Amino acid sequence: MNYMKCKKCGEKAVIKMRQHKLALCKPHFLEWIPEQTERFIKKYAMFSRHEKILVAVSGGKDSLSLWDVLWRLGYSVDGVYIHLGVDGGVNYSAVSEKYAAEFAHSRALGLQVVNVPQIYGATVPELAESTSRGQGRACSVCGLVKRHIMNQVAYDGNYQVLVTGHNLDDEAAALFGNTITWSTEMLQRQGVVLKEAPGFARKTKPFCRFYERETAAYALLSGIPYIYDECPFSIGSKSLYYKDVLNRLEEENPGIKLNFYLGFLRARECGFIPQKDVSPERYAQRCPICNQPTTTDGLCSFCRLVSRE
Amino acid sequence: MNYMKCKKCGEKAVIKMRQHKLALCKPHFLEWIPEQTERFIKKYAMFSRHEKILVAVSGGKDSLSLWDVLWRLGYSVDGVYIHLGVDGGVNYSAVSEKYAAEFAHSRALGLQVVNVPQIYGATVPELAESTSRGQGRACSVCGLVKRHIMNQVAYDGNYQVLVTGHNLDDEAAALFGNTITWSTEMLQRQGVVLKEAPGFARKTKPFCRFYERETAAYALLSGIPYIYDECPFSIGSKSLYYKDVLNRLEEENPGIKLNFYLGFLRARECGFIPQKDVSPERYAQRCPICNQPTTTDGLCSFCRLVSRE
Repeated sequence: MNYMKCKKCGEKAVIKMRQHKLALCKPHFLEWIPEQTERFIKKYAMFSRHEKILVAVSGGKDSLSLWDVLWRLGYSVDGVYIHLGVDGGVNYSAVSEKYAAEFAHSRALGLQVVNVPQIYGATVPELAESTSRGQGRACSVCGLVKRHIMNQVAYDGNYQVLVTGHNLDDEAAALFGNTITWSTEMLQRQGVVLKEAPGFARKTKPFCRFYERETAAYALLSGIPYIYDECPFSIGSKSLYYKDVLNRLEEENPGIKLNFYLGFLRARECGFIPQKDVSPERYAQRCPICNQPTTTDGLCSFCRLVSRE
Repeated sequence: MNYMKCKKCGEKAVIKMRQHKLALCKPHFLEWIPEQTERFIKKYAMFSRHEKILVAVSGGKDSLSLWDVLWRLGYSVDGVYIHLGVDGGVNYSAVSEKYAAEFAHSRALGLQVVNVPQIYGATVPELAESTSRGQGRACSVCGLVKRHIMNQVAYDGNYQVLVTGHNLDDEAAALFGNTITWSTEMLQRQGVVLKEAPGFARKTKPFCRFYERETAAYALLSGIPYIYDECPFSIGSKSLYYKDVLNRLEEENPGIKLNFYLGFLRARECGFIPQKDVSPERYAQRCPICNQPTTTDGLCSFCRLVSRE
């Protein structure tokens, strides 16, 4: 019987990446992912080995694989896990915290846990219920909460860099959503690196060029246990819908997803798409409760959200 | 039994346009299309009743409906039909010429016919065969031939404006193709109006905001006979594929196609997408055979194509 052969050694391949016309065996794939990650870190000037890095871990395949890869590459990376209080009938937050904690423990890495319901007296679904944000408000409130806490932990711990496990499918889906609606504000912000600014660590996404199936394969093949479920609140979200649209396109046109994203990055680089970084002038004020930079007088959006009666 | 009611008169509607939340009966739909066309002509400053307009007619629903609407609105419009010599087992060019000629005759409108095989000794499929353009070369060569002849006829006849029947599906499909590949050159040129320049008439697309099903409904309901077939060479083309992708999206998200296109036009208008018109400096030279403006020394691409042995 014919089987795919690893391009590097001719042994039996475990994965074929059609967009790269590349098939690899398990050992070479487990080498390839860190090599490529290192290449992306350099190419986009994400960070150096002298910087203190914080990775936001969710307990899923992307963030745990990212932490594993950065650790293997010798970067100085601690983790933060944000317990959102999501149950959804599958005990989602508790289970994912367990995976994050086990991962950190097994490698003797530092993990800080921030428990939203314990600290703020309400779960993210409860906070979402209390707002007037429309459809998709759970995801929108969750995003606000996570951004706030990540910024706070990075700031308090003097981390220069905050990394997240966004993969190419995440980035391409967000890009597709921003493009199909021509959300020019969002298109200007969607880069690989968001520069640091007073009160904000630099933010970057070292896995942004890997397909989701590659980060999943990395986690499985390196034996990293992770939570398989999607967040129960994301079911039916625009983000999952756009991923599905792009996957159908990819099926018919291998590589289209990667080229869509890389073409966008090139269009940014050549100035066709203007870039917008965090403007210190816009974030000139500080929230009287949390002291984070904010664009308005009074409480920041996060403190307004959690201080609601 | 329940049926859709016309929003204007309450009679039985013949069409529902979900993107506008609008259902109309036959008489009101046949009024609505010209009203909207007039609105678009003014909104995008396409042309006035004092200008001499040339419409490129293919014998299909879009261009014949457009000619009909502009004629009813009192614009001064002649037609040009380009016989490309496409047979494809359905006698495509001959049949579509017959529809164009019958339309012009029935309304006593002027139609100029340019017969490519008679003038240049080869059909467009034959010209395409003779080139080294890759996949999709028939469509690419056909585009080159049509642009050249339209420009020539407009120039020779002192037409200030050249209009084509491109509908929203055509424009959104082209935009989708240019966006999914971030073809920044093409994105800069894809406006509603391409300004006149020395040797070139102004070009515009008065139907660019109507869905294909609306132009088809207009042709059917006004009793305009037209060729139903798609060009046999377009089967399997990227353009039809992107239309299909967008129709699947539209099915699930009524209005997404229109909003995608209008969002793009807004992004152009506010300067987010740079606009590129025909640059007289770039087209500074004239082809020694046809005298059309060209970007290079020597023959223009069209004359190079048809002068090939």
